[in-house]
Amino acid sequence: MIQNTALTPQMIHQLQLIVGESFLFTDTQTRNDYGHDETEDYVFPPAVVLKPGTPEEISSIMKFANANGIPVTPIGGRTGLSGGALSIHQGIGLSMERFNKIIHIDEQNLQVLVEPAVITQVLREAVAEKGLFYPPDPSSQGSCFIGGNVAENAGGARAVKYGVTKDYVLNLEVVLPNGEIIWTGANTLKNSTGYNLTQLMVGSEGTLGVITKIVMKLVPQNSHNILMLVPFFNAGQACEAVAKIFKAGIIPSALEFMERDAIDWTLKYVDGVNIEIKEAVQAHLLIEVDGNYPEVLFAEAEKITEVLEQFEIDEILFADSEDQKNALWKLRRAVGEAVKSNSVYKEEDTVVPRYELPTLLKGIKTIGEKYGFKSVCYGHAGDGNLHVNIVKGDMSDEAWKTEVPKGIREIFELTVGLKGTLSGEHGIGYVQKNYMDIAFGEVQLQLMKGIKNTFDPNGILNPGKVLPDYL
Amino acid sequence: MIQNTALTPQMIHQLQLIVGESFLFTDTQTRNDYGHDETEDYVFPPAVVLKPGTPEEISSIMKFANANGIPVTPIGGRTGLSGGALSIHQGIGLSMERFNKIIHIDEQNLQVLVEPAVITQVLREAVAEKGLFYPPDPSSQGSCFIGGNVAENAGGARAVKYGVTKDYVLNLEVVLPNGEIIWTGANTLKNSTGYNLTQLMVGSEGTLGVITKIVMKLVPQNSHNILMLVPFFNAGQACEAVAKIFKAGIIPSALEFMERDAIDWTLKYVDGVNIEIKEAVQAHLLIEVDGNYPEVLFAEAEKITEVLEQFEIDEILFADSEDQKNALWKLRRAVGEAVKSNSVYKEEDTVVPRYELPTLLKGIKTIGEKYGFKSVCYGHAGDGNLHVNIVKGDMSDEAWKTEVPKGIREIFELTVGLKGTLSGEHGIGYVQKNYMDIAFGEVQLQLMKGIKNTFDPNGILNPGKVLPDYL
Repeated sequence: MIQNTALTPQMIHQLQLIVGESFLFTDTQTRNDYGHDETEDYVFPPAVVLKPGTPEEISSIMKFANANGIPVTPIGGRTGLSGGALSIHQGIGLSMERFNKIIHIDEQNLQVLVEPAVITQVLREAVAEKGLFYPPDPSSQGSCFIGGNVAENAGGARAVKYGVTKDYVLNLEVVLPNGEIIWTGANTLKNSTGYNLTQLMVGSEGTLGVITKIVMKLVPQNSHNILMLVPFFNAGQACEAVAKIFKAGIIPSALEFMERDAIDWTLKYVDGVNIEIKEAVQAHLLIEVDGNYPEVLFAEAEKITEVLEQFEIDEILFADSEDQKNALWKLRRAVGEAVKSNSVYKEEDTVVPRYELPTLLKGIKTIGEKYGFKSVCYGHAGDGNLHVNIVKGDMSDEAWKTEVPKGIREIFELTVGLKGTLSGEHGIGYVQKNYMDIAFGEVQLQLMKGIKNTFDPNGILNPGKVLPDYL
Repeated sequence: MIQNTALTPQMIHQLQLIVGESFLFTDTQTRNDYGHDETEDYVFPPAVVLKPGTPEEISSIMKFANANGIPVTPIGGRTGLSGGALSIHQGIGLSMERFNKIIHIDEQNLQVLVEPAVITQVLREAVAEKGLFYPPDPSSQGSCFIGGNVAENAGGARAVKYGVTKDYVLNLEVVLPNGEIIWTGANTLKNSTGYNLTQLMVGSEGTLGVITKIVMKLVPQNSHNILMLVPFFNAGQACEAVAKIFKAGIIPSALEFMERDAIDWTLKYVDGVNIEIKEAVQAHLLIEVDGNYPEVLFAEAEKITEVLEQFEIDEILFADSEDQKNALWKLRRAVGEAVKSNSVYKEEDTVVPRYELPTLLKGIKTIGEKYGFKSVCYGHAGDGNLHVNIVKGDMSDEAWKTEVPKGIREIFELTVGLKGTLSGEHGIGYVQKNYMDIAFGEVQLQLMKGIKNTFDPNGILNPGKVLPDYL
């Protein structure tokens, strides 16, 4: 395994020659800034922060690092939730921030060629101006980088109808750990030409190569949507309703679940959102349908309402203006931050087949009681993707350190027992890697290690991520 | 590289003990039957045909073959068009035909657990009975196996709206070359848990593992569609119209292109389809839109018609009954067979970004003139996927052997120059492997070889496929 390698002044000088003096940083402030993402309270500063400007510069950096056994950690928007961008073995922190151009929106082929440091929302808005739609919308879309989305295979609320990041990536330019620059595939919608290097790269969390260009597919933009907030008197029933909606033949463009605490804490955290919630309400579903024909959306909303009326719900709130829609989305998107602002926390990204959601939710609560922790659950219920925020509150440091990991292991065992897995959209990164044995046996993990060795025989690229330590 | 290994009587006896006497065949007839698929006129009989019944039997076969250096070629429905199932190094022909059960249609999660030898159309009809839709529909759906579809990442007419096989595969049970039985992922719609072994297996053409169970996602079935056949007086314009339809914001559920010859030859080949075509017509588009709301489909068909009217077209034929729809689809699906029944042929499976179709078509004709061959083109134009049937006709054997491969190489160079690639849905298999250097450089090919070595260090599984010989 790679060791922390001290960077000599000569090495720093070499790197300076590659990126230029003004794009190399060794000061404490910068190193700290680039030493964290949104994962708990971890800070792992790299020994040096580099901000290269071209794939060729990255190629030179990789060749140099590969020859000298220096760890390189690619760093995107630093919004990750699994610690993929943490420089846990120090070395070079490779900030991609200068790769921030939308190179070409191809309106003829409904594609976009984009650099990895473009902010997801900026990309979504730029293509929207041309009447096109890039659906994946992680809650951090206002600050995360599209390259990070590709690296973690990010999802978001619209994934339930439109798919996750991987479903939009057609082709990637990548700098390999040995400095070679390659394209992984072709700019086509279909491709049966050799092993799928593109999809192998998507979700590999910056451990196989550094993404420098992305060709993505786009779809025509829809003109209308209906958004409804549904209060449930029973949280389990809210989960049950999810599978029933699909069973009725509807694919909503969003189907989000929020436990009572999630929404209460968020209402305190964000401004300008006012909704009154009866005390007996335990959870909400936020449901959106979209399309080009309002009459179809009305019909779909009515079908959904018929399904919902089989459960104990309070009055459904239909958003009656763009402002109200924006307010409800603001509320949903702020849940993560709001919960985290409340306490020290750990966030898990469980995912199961959607019909198993009620069992998962109940199991999480039972496990929490057993190990003495409180959890706040919310997420992309339509995909069976439930974010579990375990909040420290007034738990002792000792219990937080010893009991909570046992509880998390049990939650993951439950998840996998339900044919689900550890992460739906946040990735494994640093914080979940030692749970990987729950999802995979030794055989699969050794295959993954073999793949890693094929791409990165010296193990210099983002070491200590994805695969468990013992491997 | 693996050599043809003679199977001793002792080896045959060992294999008999594994699969049982009645599922091992060494007679010439059976070996010939399992020695070909639909790829040109190739026949490569295996030394022995095995028909195992369980993953455990396959595991034992693989362990035995791995220990003794015996090539194993997985064989599905034998409808492949790139020779992926040909036992080019003899050894064991592993027919999967006894894995023919639909194990569970999960109506709660909209998923199906299926064995690989289920015929695609059987699967589609079984889920349709539950109101569910499995969209991928290769033209060979009446006889191809779903496992072969996964191995080749098959497409079909509906891919343009619904995606290809890979977009429906959630999880795979696979027997590795060393006999280990693994699941590649989880039964979830989203998954960011380790490297994507599932998508690496899809499209790997039976070279990384033997698929024994497949978990696939399903979608709700649509109730209505409109089908129209559009005659163009100019084939290039038919190609041009394709991108324009998407640009108008419509995603048809099928958008197929057929050159004049394709439709003429097929009308002679199939019974019960009668359409009159004016002499000046050069090509047709077959366009379908689907959904649950007829009024929306009428509106979409009208929008499409507006686009089409910008081109030189004859009167559009709207299918006015289920019978007529079936007849038009029968016509389209029979094109491949009809063209092939006419002459010795080679079929290429070019794919480009769809706006490049007119350039591709024109280039193919120019290259054909240069090398003296005739081609008939048709395919999934909405995906930019153009099947090029090169027909021998009265070409000399000499020219067929020496000139045509040069022409094919130029066609692929053109395709890749247009940001396309060699195969959209048929795979590389045996017949395209020595063109792989056009799509990929040495670096990518070595990565693919490294992946192959990780899964199959002794190179026993489907040797001589996908990667070029020199590698």
